[in-house]
Amino acid sequence: MATAAQAAETKVAIAIHGGAGTILKANMTPELEQAYHQTLSAALHAGHAVLQRGGSSVDAVQAAIIVMEDSELFNAGKGAVFTHHKTNEMDASIMRGDNLNAGAVTGVTRIKNPIKLAAAVMEQSNHVMLSGPRAEEFAQSVGFDFVDPKYFYTERRWQQLQKVLQESPDEVRLSEQAHDQVSAAKSDTIWPDDNKFGTVGAVALDKDGNLAAATSTGGMTNKKFGRIGDSPIIGAGTYADNQACAISATGHGEYFIRAAVAHDICARVMYQGVSLQQAADAVIQQKLKVMTAEGGIVGMSKAGDVVFSFNSSGMYRGYINVKGELKTAIYQTQ
Amino acid sequence: MATAAQAAETKVAIAIHGGAGTILKANMTPELEQAYHQTLSAALHAGHAVLQRGGSSVDAVQAAIIVMEDSELFNAGKGAVFTHHKTNEMDASIMRGDNLNAGAVTGVTRIKNPIKLAAAVMEQSNHVMLSGPRAEEFAQSVGFDFVDPKYFYTERRWQQLQKVLQESPDEVRLSEQAHDQVSAAKSDTIWPDDNKFGTVGAVALDKDGNLAAATSTGGMTNKKFGRIGDSPIIGAGTYADNQACAISATGHGEYFIRAAVAHDICARVMYQGVSLQQAADAVIQQKLKVMTAEGGIVGMSKAGDVVFSFNSSGMYRGYINVKGELKTAIYQTQ
Repeated sequence: MATAAQAAETKVAIAIHGGAGTILKANMTPELEQAYHQTLSAALHAGHAVLQRGGSSVDAVQAAIIVMEDSELFNAGKGAVFTHHKTNEMDASIMRGDNLNAGAVTGVTRIKNPIKLAAAVMEQSNHVMLSGPRAEEFAQSVGFDFVDPKYFYTERRWQQLQKVLQESPDEVRLSEQAHDQVSAAKSDTIWPDDNKFGTVGAVALDKDGNLAAATSTGGMTNKKFGRIGDSPIIGAGTYADNQACAISATGHGEYFIRAAVAHDICARVMYQGVSLQQAADAVIQQKLKVMTAEGGIVGMSKAGDVVFSFNSSGMYRGYINVKGELKTAIYQTQ
Repeated sequence: MATAAQAAETKVAIAIHGGAGTILKANMTPELEQAYHQTLSAALHAGHAVLQRGGSSVDAVQAAIIVMEDSELFNAGKGAVFTHHKTNEMDASIMRGDNLNAGAVTGVTRIKNPIKLAAAVMEQSNHVMLSGPRAEEFAQSVGFDFVDPKYFYTERRWQQLQKVLQESPDEVRLSEQAHDQVSAAKSDTIWPDDNKFGTVGAVALDKDGNLAAATSTGGMTNKKFGRIGDSPIIGAGTYADNQACAISATGHGEYFIRAAVAHDICARVMYQGVSLQQAADAVIQQKLKVMTAEGGIVGMSKAGDVVFSFNSSGMYRGYINVKGELKTAIYQTQ
C-alpha cells in the first residue's frame, strides 16, 4: 500500500459531510462529539484507503458513505429516519466526473447500503434513476442481498417520529424545516442535532484525476406522499464534472432542488471562471439565504482542493486532503 | 378579451413541443400530419388565451399542456405509453421563473392531467417532488378527482408494448433508445414516430414578465424498475428563472439528467452572457451529441424570444410569439 506521501504526489483527496443544520456545542455531550469525530474519521480513512491503493474516486466515495450508512449517528442507511407510514425509505445518488455517468435510487426499504444500489444503477443499467419497490426488483436482478426492514429500526429515530406525530398528527403542509423545528423545540432528547437536515455525502479525486460525488439519506421524519428531496436528484444533491468540481449537498431539499445547487456551483466554476469556494459561497451564502434555505455542501475542485460552505450553525464534515492531512469538524467556527 | 395586437404590446408569448426523435415525412400520412398541426395549434391557442386575458405564465403552460395530455397523439396523459407491468405511469413537472418555485410528480396512474397535480404540489404543498401511489394521496387531500386507469388505454400504445415484449421479453438492460429502435424497426404500424421520445412541454412569458416552464410524459414503453426520466426532474427536463430563460426538454432522458440540460442552458445564459439560442445549441448540438444523446428543447428568453434546438430528425413544436404570430412544425427543415 502506498504511503500518505506517495498519495500526495498523485494528488488524491476525499471530503465528506454528515448533514448540516442547527448543531450547537451547548447541546452536545463530549461522548457524542467524540463518536461523531470517530465515525467521520473512519469514513475518511475507508475512502482514502481506496484512493491510496490506486482505486477510483467512484469506489472511494462509496467506501466512505458505507461507513456512515452503517452508523446510527447519521440519517442514512442504519440511522435512517421514519416516514409517516412507520417505514424507513432511503434515497441515494452517485456521479462520476469523467463521463458524467450517474445513478440514483429513491424510496428503497430493504437495501442495507443504498449508495451501492445507486452505483449499480450507474454501472449495470442504462438508466439513471430508479424508484420504489421496483428499484428493488432491479437490485434483485443484479444480485443484491436484502435486509429485513427491521434492520433500520433505531430507538432514537422511532422516538423522533412519535414526537412529531403527537405534535402535528394531521398536519399536511408542514415542511421539513418546520418538522425539525417542532421536533427540536419540544423534544427532551439528548441528541444535539434533531434540527438538522440528515444526509451523508462524499466527494473524491483519484490518481487519474477523476472526480466523483455521492449522497445518501433517510429523508425526513414523518415524510408523506412519497416526497423526494434533493439527495437522489442529479444536479441538486449530487453533481460531478471533471471540468469543474464534485459536489454533495445537504439541506432543506426542496430549495436545493429549485436552486439546482450542485449543478449551479459547477456551472459557475465552468462559465464564470470563479474559484470553487467563490461559486459555493455565492450559492450557499447568498442565493440560498435569500430563499431562506438552510444547508451546505462539500466540494472538491479538479485540483483536489476541498471546499465546505454552509449557512447553518453546524455541518458534520471532514477531509483528507492532497497532503494526506486529516481534519474533522462539526460547528461553524473551529 | 385583448386582441393579438394588445397582447403584442405587453409581450406575451408561448411555445410548445410534443416530443423529439426520428420523425420522417416519408412515414407520415397527410391526415396524421394535419392532426398534429391542429392539436399543436389548439394547445398554443389555449395557452395564449390565458396570457391574453392577463393570466400567468404558470397557468398558460398548464392550459397548453392539458390540450396535449388530453390528445392520443402525444406520449402524455391520455396517450401515455404502457410500462412493462401493463400500467400507464406518468411524470410531470412545472416551474415558475419569478421565485423558482417548482412542483413535480412521478409514477401517477389515476390523474387525468398530471401537469395539474405537479402545479398543485408547487402551490399547495411545501414540497417539490412527490412520487408513486402516495403522490395520489396528496392529490386526494387537495381535492383531485381520479380517473379509472383504463382511461389511459389506447390501442396504439398497447400494440407498441406487445411488439416490444415479443421482441425482447427478458431484456433487462435495454435502453429507452434501444426499445424505440426495436419497436420502429420491426413494426408495421402506420405511426411515423415510434422512434420518438414522447414528451410534451411548454414555456411562456406573461404580461408581468414572468417565465414558466412545464413538461409531462408517459415515460418509456416497457418501462421497468420504476425508472424516472428527465421530465419530472427540475434542472433536467424543466427549468425557469426570470434572470435567464424557461426550458422544457424532450429526449433520451438519462442523458438529459446527466447533462442537467434545462439548468445548464439557463446557467450559460446567466454566466456566459450568450444568447438563449447559443446556449441551447451548445448543449443540444454539441454537448449532448458528444454523449450520443438524441432530443431537443423549447425555450423562451426573458424578452419573449422563442428558441428551438433539437438534434433529431423531427420535433413536434410550435409557438405564438410576441407579435401574435402562430407557427407549428414537425420536421427539421421547414
